[in-house]
Parts: sequence; C-alpha cells; structure tokens
Amino acid sequence: MTPTMKAYKILEDEPVFTPAEVGGFTAAAVGVDVRQTGDRQRLDLALLVSDQPCTVAGVFTRNSLAAAPVQLGRAQLSKGTTAKAVLVNSGNANAATGESGYTDALRMQQDCATLLEVAPHEVYVASTGRIGRHLPMDAIGKGLPELVTALAPDYESGMRAAEAILTSDTRRKVASVAIDTPSGPVRLSGMAKGAGMIEPNMATMLAFIVTDAAVAREDLQTLLQEAVQGSFNAITVDGDQSTNDTVLVLANGESTVAFSPDHPDAWTVFKKAMKRVCQQLAQLIVGDGEKVTKVVELRVTGASSVEEAEQAARAVGNSLLVKSSWYGNDPNWGRVLDAVGYSGARTREDSFSISYMDTEGSEGVPAFAKGRVFEEHLSKWKQIVAQPRFVIGIELGEGPGAYTLWSTDLTEDYVDFNKSE
Amino acid sequence: MTPTMKAYKILEDEPVFTPAEVGGFTAAAVGVDVRQTGDRQRLDLALLVSDQPCTVAGVFTRNSLAAAPVQLGRAQLSKGTTAKAVLVNSGNANAATGESGYTDALRMQQDCATLLEVAPHEVYVASTGRIGRHLPMDAIGKGLPELVTALAPDYESGMRAAEAILTSDTRRKVASVAIDTPSGPVRLSGMAKGAGMIEPNMATMLAFIVTDAAVAREDLQTLLQEAVQGSFNAITVDGDQSTNDTVLVLANGESTVAFSPDHPDAWTVFKKAMKRVCQQLAQLIVGDGEKVTKVVELRVTGASSVEEAEQAARAVGNSLLVKSSWYGNDPNWGRVLDAVGYSGARTREDSFSISYMDTEGSEGVPAFAKGRVFEEHLSKWKQIVAQPRFVIGIELGEGPGAYTLWSTDLTEDYVDFNKSE
Repeated sequence: MTPTMKAYKILEDEPVFTPAEVGGFTAAAVGVDVRQTGDRQRLDLALLVSDQPCTVAGVFTRNSLAAAPVQLGRAQLSKGTTAKAVLVNSGNANAATGESGYTDALRMQQDCATLLEVAPHEVYVASTGRIGRHLPMDAIGKGLPELVTALAPDYESGMRAAEAILTSDTRRKVASVAIDTPSGPVRLSGMAKGAGMIEPNMATMLAFIVTDAAVAREDLQTLLQEAVQGSFNAITVDGDQSTNDTVLVLANGESTVAFSPDHPDAWTVFKKAMKRVCQQLAQLIVGDGEKVTKVVELRVTGASSVEEAEQAARAVGNSLLVKSSWYGNDPNWGRVLDAVGYSGARTREDSFSISYMDTEGSEGVPAFAKGRVFEEHLSKWKQIVAQPRFVIGIELGEGPGAYTLWSTDLTEDYVDFNKSE
Repeated sequence: MTPTMKAYKILEDEPVFTPAEVGGFTAAAVGVDVRQTGDRQRLDLALLVSDQPCTVAGVFTRNSLAAAPVQLGRAQLSKGTTAKAVLVNSGNANAATGESGYTDALRMQQDCATLLEVAPHEVYVASTGRIGRHLPMDAIGKGLPELVTALAPDYESGMRAAEAILTSDTRRKVASVAIDTPSGPVRLSGMAKGAGMIEPNMATMLAFIVTDAAVAREDLQTLLQEAVQGSFNAITVDGDQSTNDTVLVLANGESTVAFSPDHPDAWTVFKKAMKRVCQQLAQLIVGDGEKVTKVVELRVTGASSVEEAEQAARAVGNSLLVKSSWYGNDPNWGRVLDAVGYSGARTREDSFSISYMDTEGSEGVPAFAKGRVFEEHLSKWKQIVAQPRFVIGIELGEGPGAYTLWSTDLTEDYVDFNKSE
C-alpha cells in the first residue's frame, strides 16, 4: 500500500480505548497477593498478549542498580527479536534481590511462555513495588494459568490490566489514539503507572504501549526515544529515579498498515500519535503524583543551550522550597530565581525574567525582569498560583535554548505518606 | 618569635566565647525593623569591628544570581586589602534588586565606614532574608549610630550579634577554639546562621569567624577553603543554595602570634582549630535545619573517586523519599540503594553494601551486602533509625573514594513552614 498525502490523520474526539482493544491484542489481570498480606482481591498481576509476533522498542531506567526484570528486558531488547507478551507484577520490585532475583524473573518469563505456548524470549516481564524482597514465586506461579485463561480483547480486561500495575497511584492511567488511513484505522493504546518517585529518566514508572501498526524495530526504537524525551522524561514529582522504570512499545502489524520514515507524511502522523499517547500518559502520571495538589508547567527559554534550559527547569522543579511555596499558593518568585541561579545554567540578573501564566495560553504577568520587581502585579500572581494548574515562564536572556518541564507541589501529605512504607 | 614544636596546642574544654571576646574585636547589634513589620524589638543589624586592620579570607555562593552584598564582597576580596568591620542585616537579602540594590549595599558600607572613621573598603556587608525587596535604607541609616555606640568586647554583645543575623533559625550559633602558644593564647570564634536552604556551597548560610592570630592573606584564604570543604559544604537540609551565602574570616594579629605554612607544626594546629570552628558551626546549622528532627551522617566509601562518593552521598542526602522515611523511623535501605543507583556514582549490586550505625562509632549493622538482604537485623536497624542522630555506611566496592555528608530528615512541618513566607 502506498501512503497518500493527507490521507493519514489522527481521529480527534475518539473515546478512550484500552490496549486490549487494539487489533490482535488481549489483556487480563488477576490478584495473587504479591504483597503477601493475605489480600487476593487486589489485582497485582497483568498480562498483555498479541496473536502475532510484534516488533519491540524499549527504554529502561538508567539507575545503575537496576532491578532483575530490567536487566532481563535490556538483554532481550538488545537481541532484536520479536515478542508476543508482557507480564507485569506490582507490589514487589524484584530489585536488590541478587542472583536469585534474576532467576525469579527468568522463571516468570519461562512459566508464562509455557502457558502461552510461545518462546521465553517472546515474553517481557516487569515489576514494581518494594525493593529488596524476593518475589512470592509460588503465588505468581499459581496465578498464571488463571491469568492466561482470562485474556480477552475488551475494555474491561484492558482496564483490569491497567489497575493491576498500580502501586501508590490513585487512578488507572490509559491513553489512546486512532489514526485514519486509506486502509482503515490504526490504533495505539497504552497503560502506565507512576505516582511518586517520578523524575528524569522515568523514575518509578512503567508504561506499556501497543499498536496494530506495522513498524520496523529500528524505526520504532527511534520513535519511542524521541517521544519519551518530551513526555515521560519531562515530568518530575520528587526528583527520585527508580530501579525499575520501563517503557515498552509492541507493534503487531495486525492492521496491515505499515509506517516508516521512507513515507514521511504517514510517518509524521504516526510519530504525532505516539507522542500524544506518551504525553497523555505522562500528564496522567504527574497529575497523580503522590499527594499532589498542583501541576506546574515550567517553560524555560533563552538558555545558552537546551541542556542548560533543562538544568534550570529541573533545579526549579525539584526545589523543596519552590515546591512548598506552590502548595501554599505563594508566588515566591525569589525562590524560583534562587534555584535558577544555582542550576548551573548561565544567566545574569539584567537579562533574566520570570512571569506567571494561566494554562490557557493567556499572556504572562511579569514578576521580575532585568533587575525590576513588578510588585504591582502581586494580586495577579497570587490568583494564578492558587490554581491547580499554572505556568511559570523563565527567560534567561542568553540564547535559543528552551525546555518545558511539568512539576508538582510538595505537600505535608507527601511526607506523611512516605514516612513509612 | 620562633614557633617551637609541641608548644602549640588546642585548649580542650574551654567555655565557648564569642567573636567579641577575641583580642581586639568588639561586637554589637540593634533592631531597626529591616522586615518593616513595625517590630523594632527583633535584632536585625549586627556589627563586628577590629581595632587593628585584618587580613581577610572569604568564600561566597556560586549562585549566578548572587545578591548585591555578595557582588560587592567579592570585588573587595579580590583587591586583597585589609578590613576592619563586617556589617550584617537579616530580614532582607538585597538580592534580585538590580542596580539600586548594589547602590544600597555600597551605601551601607559607606555610612558604616564614616561612623567608624575607616575607609569604605575596610567594611564588608552581608544580607540575608527575603529576595526581591529593596532594603529599608532609612531605617538602617538611622540605626547605624546606635549600633556603633553599642560596640563592646563582651560575651553579651557577641551573642546579640549572633542573634541579629538569624532568620528562620531557632538558636544562636557560636563556636570557638583557643590555642595555647609559647607567647600566650590565640583565639578563634565564629558566628553563623543557617536553617533551611542548606546545600552544597553553603546555601543560605552566613558565617563570620574572627581570630587574633596574625596570618597572611593568601594563607588564610587557602586555609578557609580547605576548612569549608569538610564543614559548611558537607551539610544538606533541602538541597537549595542561596543567593547570599558568605563565609568571612578576619585575622587581626592582636595576639602577636603569627601562623604560616613555613612553620608546619604551629600551622597544623591553627588549621585544626579553624576546621574545628567551621565544623562546629556547620553541625549547629544542620542540627537547626528547618523543622528537622534527625541528623544523619552518610559515610560513603569505596567509590571510584571522591567526586563519585560525593555524588552518591548527595543523591541519598537529598532524596525526598529517603528523608521522609527517616522522619518516619523507617530503615528503608531500598530507597538508599535506589538513590545511589541514580546518583551517577559507579557501583554494582554484587559489590554494594549498606549498613546502619550508632553515632558512637559502634560497629555497623548490615542491611544489604552484595545481593543479600539481612532481614534478620530489621529490629536493630529500626532501633538505630529511631535515634535523633545516626550513621549510614554506604560501600560502593569500586575504589578508594570516600565522602561524608550530614543530612536531615524531611518533615511535614518543613512543608507547612515553607508553604508561605
């Protein structure tokens, strides 16, 4: 099929559909009491399966003490073979579990593959939860047959899977995009978990995205890495990064519609669709940060480089003093200035400015510009900072570098929630 | 005078004395309502003066948006001239105040010099407090004559000065060391303010140390930089760095005892004395961190380099999840492992270990070592972490690099306290 210009477009206003509703995929979830608390009602084991072999792309945590399933997944991905399934447990990270932890991850993979009648390397595994405890392998092994039997291609099964991967999240996170093509619709859908410990390089987050498009492995990998930069890597709740972060994309070609950079117009639409799914999931994650009451968009411009713009944004977005002031509805731009000053990004007092904005793209209200404080706007800043979502514009006046980061406030409830686990 | 070996020694168990009690120095403080709240009872203007010209050493914040008094102080220091006074206000940082802020700092310097009958360049000024507001120059100008009149060489005047420089601190911070020499005693005494926003490179902290030793400017500067590394730069409360951090040392030679690296034995004792004053002040600061209930010593060893050891220590010491768990008496070593993993310091699961220790140098209780979890020691970890001070040993198993950092817990009260200013 030859892609025709303008014939590919994202379908707007489609209702959300789950990974289980993407052509050729099924999903399921069961509760096996991974946490060993006696609660089998809580879903904690999820499975996504494709009828057809899928090309796979993946991005993993850069934490040097990565969990066993991450080590296994990296090894699988590097071999470049196709896959058919992703098995995920919540409640236990299988991290800092030594060699026997790696053996457990291998056994999850093997047992699942046997039941699905596929090769072990066709099954990816992922874990999230408490570090330093061995997985309850008996409980997981006993739950697997029920999990495989429950596989179904419907909304409910997809939502159950999306629920089973959660830890301290308060909401299930699913995002989807459909593309209209000359050969019929192509679908992308993903599920994610996040909550606390969200900072660069996708800390404590899992995301699994499936599509019925046909995409070559290398192209899918490039696409994912680009999409992750402007989405999962551009959010921060508490600056921590986890041992288990994993983003996987599986493309099974069931729609028979192929996308490749050789056909740039169709490719551009597919890229946009992937980016949108990643951004929606990232926004759901940051909005569900642990005990968060506010999401703040930090738009840094005028930096000497993109890297310096990112440094400035992260210094502000991770400053405890700044985050505490947002929680208190205090437009404390002095703390923002202070954080930019120690970020390492170059700027000077006489070229630097800060402004507050509504999310609805209204014009910025200046707070500080080139040595002058706009105290007369104090009531306007206060009004903006009192909203659950707002934007801070930070101009460094040095060059063309820009970066946008989504951060959150820091609340007393966050500390209370995290003081023990 | 020729320094004789063994004739120089630090006098242990001396009662604490203030900068005003060091030979040739006087101190004073007044309340001028810098905060413009109508409260003139609160001391907010402090002055330290030496009869004799002093050599001066200084270390300033690396924040690129440094406050006006820091810019002025840096310029003075770079000229290498002697000084006779330090004037400090709390309640207003004179930061992000543009050119007129710099003019205000110059005027503080000039007005004080006129009253003291010294040259303007002999007066250093420092400010701490809210960013982005102009100093109430009239109030400060009116208070200066009273301040100069109040100068006295006694304990009470020194303590009043130590009080006037505080912002959110709950306690005055004074440390002192006396050295016994063949020509009589030499004294060092310093005062500091800290509390929140304490992280590398001395964030939001001021310290002023005076001595009646005679020390050449270059030697004093080298000495101070070394002492700062293992003291003020090795503490962290919230990871923020301020626009105003300043450490100054003034040596007036009043004791007639000279110290220089040319006489290594005496020099070693003087270095030790300076380091002790800096460390005591740093410990007072971290122990008085905003709403802190615990001080935790992080001893990182076995890193590939000192820099990597510091990276690992700072990642742990600044992790919100780790700090929240300390507050909850939760020995969550998994979060410590996670933070080391994303710090950038090289380590591997099979060479890495974590242990908990009492401060009294008792043996460490292992939590995790080379892939093994010592769950059987859980009750011991809990006992240690419940103490107001404890030590975490972190061995990376890579090389000889070591670094010790003092951090604190993160409390709900911290967030409540900082949600507005």
